[in-house]
Amino acid sequence: MAAAVESFAARGYHATTTRDIATAAGMSPAALYVHFPAKSAVLFAISRSGHERTLRLVQTTMAEHADPVDATRTLVERFVAWHARRHVVARVVQHELDALTPDDHKVVLELRRTTEGLVRDLVTRGVAAGAFTVPDVRTAARAVLSLGIDVARWYSPSSRPSPEVLGKQYGELVLNMLGYTS
Amino acid sequence: MAAAVESFAARGYHATTTRDIATAAGMSPAALYVHFPAKSAVLFAISRSGHERTLRLVQTTMAEHADPVDATRTLVERFVAWHARRHVVARVVQHELDALTPDDHKVVLELRRTTEGLVRDLVTRGVAAGAFTVPDVRTAARAVLSLGIDVARWYSPSSRPSPEVLGKQYGELVLNMLGYTS
Repeated sequence: MAAAVESFAARGYHATTTRDIATAAGMSPAALYVHFPAKSAVLFAISRSGHERTLRLVQTTMAEHADPVDATRTLVERFVAWHARRHVVARVVQHELDALTPDDHKVVLELRRTTEGLVRDLVTRGVAAGAFTVPDVRTAARAVLSLGIDVARWYSPSSRPSPEVLGKQYGELVLNMLGYTS
Repeated sequence: MAAAVESFAARGYHATTTRDIATAAGMSPAALYVHFPAKSAVLFAISRSGHERTLRLVQTTMAEHADPVDATRTLVERFVAWHARRHVVARVVQHELDALTPDDHKVVLELRRTTEGLVRDLVTRGVAAGAFTVPDVRTAARAVLSLGIDVARWYSPSSRPSPEVLGKQYGELVLNMLGYTS
């Protein structure tokens, strides 16, 4: 999977062959075939794993923090740091969605919907508690996730600040964006 | 160029041939060659035009609004609406940067740096005027642009709200994010 991520990131999904992936992984195409019967199966495994990771991050953070403000801050810090640190895999996960087979796409879409629903619930709870004021909950929740996901597009190993510091700064920016005043 | 945008968006830059572009444009490969000597020249023309469009949008808006709050709100409204309306071309422009030749990449990078610098100046002016409070000007300016650019990734023709309404909502969210309280 790591070899596939590198290959997809370097030349795009469509221009990558299973032979490229096998070579990058140091195995024969036949050996790769044992694990993944098609190129799209590798992409699906990468995409599902990335989306499950994100969903778990949101679930864990919300379970740890009952307060919507604490939960939002921590969620953004972790979500942003992850997208900065793992920007190569995150780019593949985000930008090659259209290349998934219809069935695989459905599975990934369901994971995204669940994650988005949880973040929407969090913003709704913050608004209900009087901590947040937003023009529209759906758009605000989308903006929170969008900010974090797009870090993977522009972040590079030479970027400053570090993933952790960027996460802290974004945590503060997002709380402001949601109309929170400490 | 429009035919190339469609082809790149549908199958990725690397998997698209000049013949695909010529066919989509209803011309012969030889006729296409008169305008663009290589596939990368088409990508460069698309990328440069998109980045120049964005730079002009920022310059025009800043020239029209002396007040940093008004300028920021209008800039975000226009920037977001454009990325929603023109999400197909914006996706190609954003996601195929690595496919540009080194010389072409330099030209596009310079346009991006100029745009980013103008937005950074705008945030700096807002902070100096006491209208904005941000943890870090560089990160805040990056977040403003990032939010707008990422609209192109998730927006689809079936998305709600409309590009214009989304622009208004994002304008409000960004002013909040920059610590502005009306």
